[in-house]
Amino acid sequence: MVERPLRILGIPGSLRRQSYNRGLLLAAQELAPPGVTIELYELHELPLYNQDLEEAGPPAPVQHFKRAIAEADALLIATPEYNWSVPGPLKNAIDWASRPPATSPLRRKPVAIMGATTGLFGTVRGQLALRQVFLSTESYVLPKPDVLVRDAASLFRDGRLVDEPTRQMIRQLLEALVAWTLRFRDDGR
Amino acid sequence: MVERPLRILGIPGSLRRQSYNRGLLLAAQELAPPGVTIELYELHELPLYNQDLEEAGPPAPVQHFKRAIAEADALLIATPEYNWSVPGPLKNAIDWASRPPATSPLRRKPVAIMGATTGLFGTVRGQLALRQVFLSTESYVLPKPDVLVRDAASLFRDGRLVDEPTRQMIRQLLEALVAWTLRFRDDGR
Amino acid sequence: MVERPLRILGIPGSLRRQSYNRGLLLAAQELAPPGVTIELYELHELPLYNQDLEEAGPPAPVQHFKRAIAEADALLIATPEYNWSVPGPLKNAIDWASRPPATSPLRRKPVAIMGATTGLFGTVRGQLALRQVFLSTESYVLPKPDVLVRDAASLFRDGRLVDEPTRQMIRQLLEALVAWTLRFRDDGR
Amino acid sequence: MVERPLRILGIPGSLRRQSYNRGLLLAAQELAPPGVTIELYELHELPLYNQDLEEAGPPAPVQHFKRAIAEADALLIATPEYNWSVPGPLKNAIDWASRPPATSPLRRKPVAIMGATTGLFGTVRGQLALRQVFLSTESYVLPKPDVLVRDAASLFRDGRLVDEPTRQMIRQLLEALVAWTLRFRDDGR
Repeated sequence: MVERPLRILGIPGSLRRQSYNRGLLLAAQELAPPGVTIELYELHELPLYNQDLEEAGPPAPVQHFKRAIAEADALLIATPEYNWSVPGPLKNAIDWASRPPATSPLRRKPVAIMGATTGLFGTVRGQLALRQVFLSTESYVLPKPDVLVRDAASLFRDGRLVDEPTRQMIRQLLEALVAWTLRFRDDGR
Repeated sequence: MVERPLRILGIPGSLRRQSYNRGLLLAAQELAPPGVTIELYELHELPLYNQDLEEAGPPAPVQHFKRAIAEADALLIATPEYNWSVPGPLKNAIDWASRPPATSPLRRKPVAIMGATTGLFGTVRGQLALRQVFLSTESYVLPKPDVLVRDAASLFRDGRLVDEPTRQMIRQLLEALVAWTLRFRDDGR
Repeated sequence: MVERPLRILGIPGSLRRQSYNRGLLLAAQELAPPGVTIELYELHELPLYNQDLEEAGPPAPVQHFKRAIAEADALLIATPEYNWSVPGPLKNAIDWASRPPATSPLRRKPVAIMGATTGLFGTVRGQLALRQVFLSTESYVLPKPDVLVRDAASLFRDGRLVDEPTRQMIRQLLEALVAWTLRFRDDGR
Repeated sequence: MVERPLRILGIPGSLRRQSYNRGLLLAAQELAPPGVTIELYELHELPLYNQDLEEAGPPAPVQHFKRAIAEADALLIATPEYNWSVPGPLKNAIDWASRPPATSPLRRKPVAIMGATTGLFGTVRGQLALRQVFLSTESYVLPKPDVLVRDAASLFRDGRLVDEPTRQMIRQLLEALVAWTLRFRDDGR
């Protein structure tokens, strides 16, 4: 499907070890089409964003995170919703990666979003809030399909996503993200 | 104006030492009406939210922060806008304070919001995003007046807010916050 | 519960005759506590907002609508979500009622929101979008409880809401709206 | 720049005759690059959305509007902000055009947004609200540049946009919209 390998950076929005959202990304790794690799990036090491720190020279974990984004062809974010919005640790990571704006690796980077919750509303509000953030960074967020995984606890067994309809949704998201990324790949701007 | 002293917790959304938003809070301290005290709370010590940490027993800075909120009659948040939304470190602090929901000190807590930027749009988007977060926590956010401070660099001298119209806006915000807080104070629910 | 009668204006956000949201309001009429009346207001007659029309003198249906709001102690809006936001006809009605801002009957008017959908996400996004609109008009929107009615078709029989848990949610919303309205009633500002 | 002519449908979000937003579109007509035509579409004739009307067969103005969208290569919307959101009449038009979803001409249609206000905040909030609506319809909204025209009264003379920096912003928006549209043009999906 893809001429040269396509590298996707998967970012879980939750730091919790048994996070269902990390589980979605592990499933995505299994389900990636040929030629597509998905590497996971954990946000635990990033300090709280502080412009004073930035001006003193971005800390090593920040530089590492920005490089990982820059080297990826696309981002795949799987995140819970905290308080109807983006989890603080994920927002913090995006704030670091967005600085300085002119050279941010988020700029024109293709992005897909998915989310899982044990509740009923499946991160609907959080995904909207996250999309607004990526408008600011001029990232290219895939509009559809929406992957809103509700009642997550029932879909996993031993930490592995076993629900076939959800796995199918992730397959479709990955296919759409690949097509979306290729559409922007040879952007000479 | 107030029968018993009213304690407001002022929270700067930026960790930067010379933050204009911290400057707004310092001005608010000067301008507080009689009987009203404003104490500042800094967010630097809070770790990134992680449910595993929470379940192991909330870290000391988190407990301290939640106690400070619980003991305040109202919150006054002065925050920049990062990427059209709430700064990661502030969102992270709110996420900690919101947990667990049933006993969160944010519940039914009166809150006022203001924001300063060196740009043109004065944290318009960030304040909206923050209001959405406080809907989730069932905090009582003062609807008006909007304090959207643009072109902030020109309004400060030696770190002190000297622009009289802006100082007047802050006075009005404080008066409205006091009235709003008293309205909810004897809430027996 | 209330010393003098409390008048609530119920506004369906859908013009469809068999609307489930109108059905929620009909249920609210049945469930209103003693001393509370709920009158329904239909939006069909309002023209599209046009400042030229407004300046020529607001059309009769607009004047009628604004008077109905002014005479009500509170608004109760039951609305579907169209395209993740407020239905055009409802937004149009609010736009008329908000003009001119200084004398808008929406200013400091207590408001409660509920919503029904035949789908899974129960107007989550639409209600958020509507709350943002009411921030602009400085209306006092009740923060909780959220009434998000999903899978609505299964809850009605012959146009009447028969699902007891949903009826109970509406009762709770009405009680909270009454308390919220009384809190603001003697507002001398 | 374009191999075959590119047709843009310009939609003013305000019905007011002297609308500055219509003025932006008239300027865009003047400034369109070679091979690009911009036709204006007025929303006055559309009835309030009502599913009963839709099911009885969409009224002629609705059919006409949907056909105009279908025949355009892209949409260019210039709109004020009403109550921090999309004007009711514009939202109403989008609601009609979005129905039924499976065959909506808005689906995968490239869209650019601009806005003018006489105030300070230049439709910032309204444009965000409109972008959220177009996520629902799976329209492809150009992420940047943001065209947020403040203090509009000073930029027009005899109804014509004469401010050169603003005209330049519109030129850039049109160029970006053309590139964006071509990127999606041969989409076989």
